[in-house]
Amino acid sequence: MKLYVIGIGPGNYENMTVRADRALRESDTIVGYHVYTDLVRPIYPDKEYLTTGMTREADRCRMAVEEAKKGKTVSMVCSGDSGIYGMAGLIYEVRGEDESVEVEVIPGLTAACSGGAVLGAPLTHDFAVISLSDRLTEWSKIETRLHNAAEADLSIVLYNPKSKGRPDYLAKACDILLGVLNEDRLCGVVRNIGREGQSHELMTLRELRDYDADMFCTVFIGNAMTRRIGSSMVTPRGYRDV
Amino acid sequence: MKLYVIGIGPGNYENMTVRADRALRESDTIVGYHVYTDLVRPIYPDKEYLTTGMTREADRCRMAVEEAKKGKTVSMVCSGDSGIYGMAGLIYEVRGEDESVEVEVIPGLTAACSGGAVLGAPLTHDFAVISLSDRLTEWSKIETRLHNAAEADLSIVLYNPKSKGRPDYLAKACDILLGVLNEDRLCGVVRNIGREGQSHELMTLRELRDYDADMFCTVFIGNAMTRRIGSSMVTPRGYRDV
Repeated sequence: MKLYVIGIGPGNYENMTVRADRALRESDTIVGYHVYTDLVRPIYPDKEYLTTGMTREADRCRMAVEEAKKGKTVSMVCSGDSGIYGMAGLIYEVRGEDESVEVEVIPGLTAACSGGAVLGAPLTHDFAVISLSDRLTEWSKIETRLHNAAEADLSIVLYNPKSKGRPDYLAKACDILLGVLNEDRLCGVVRNIGREGQSHELMTLRELRDYDADMFCTVFIGNAMTRRIGSSMVTPRGYRDV
Repeated sequence: MKLYVIGIGPGNYENMTVRADRALRESDTIVGYHVYTDLVRPIYPDKEYLTTGMTREADRCRMAVEEAKKGKTVSMVCSGDSGIYGMAGLIYEVRGEDESVEVEVIPGLTAACSGGAVLGAPLTHDFAVISLSDRLTEWSKIETRLHNAAEADLSIVLYNPKSKGRPDYLAKACDILLGVLNEDRLCGVVRNIGREGQSHELMTLRELRDYDADMFCTVFIGNAMTRRIGSSMVTPRGYRDV
């Protein structure tokens, strides 16, 4: 009774790990949000697929655990890393203390890694990863995290910067950061990482405030040392002999 | 004139991405710290290898840029992600504004992803990544980052928790965290991620303070919601229908 929780990375085959690929090949059943199962279905067409809608996360996890209990090898697929805002935590919660279903978490490239690589090297030093979605987190807590990260001169990666239901959250987050950081702070946005239509832009924190982001964007805010080299966003580690 | 900066992940072939594998196969020359080149040499034995010692990072990057300028396809290999504390930033600094050598950063699994997966799902919510090495960073800055991350209830991942030259840094870091967090806060340590002798342990923050870590350890400190489920460390995302 084996249940893999697999981070498939940004979504293209190239950015999956060898280990994720092998686990998917040996699976009987692949479970996931339909956007993610649609990404892997062309690569593994002969599997049984089970999907649910967007906000049905717990149902999806129960479905995966139930299938594994039938003796099948099951993979739950997540975009990015399966641990970082992924389904691994919820799978453990749903499965509970009974370890008869063996859970194996297979990591994948989270957007901090894959999006950072598109921009250059924005995360060469300490950083914080913060989601702007308040569906499961109070906004006041998100505000504290943004403020503290800026005060500590951490580079910051923002996941879920905007959605239809919260069009002004990126601007609100930038206003908090602008209370601490200079408006010229170098920032970068990557859209559709590793997928068709991938694009990226560098801009100042002031420009980011009014940027038209969407749910397919990942946002990077540099630390005090971050600068533009050629067309890339680079945070130096601090080597003294360059 | 192509220069790949490749994150090979924790070190075993299974945890490399398909893209990293392809780039290494098409390279003429592979450059890196000898510990990392030794990890890939058995997989790609027919390449030219160039290495330098541990603190010769800038020399290593200059070597890679010079080889690329000769018209070779060159890969600089880094453990984990090539951006996160990796060589990507320094490669851009050494290459400078002249983009005739094309740099392509190929991301890999950083220890936050690969180590988190070993423990379960400690990073399902917002988190900070902080290195305890003060070789290139003032200790006072590291202290501020630890304090602010704890105040903001971020999960925290500590890279480079200890080395021979700084045997007491993990204890010093824990003392700062214990000024904010309860001593029962759930923590986890993973040693030799993805390599021979991989092991992991869960413990309290109080126990972590006196834990005998080394440079092959990555340390995870949970947030206020993190708990043990079965033998795993799990930070819930906050789904209300579990």
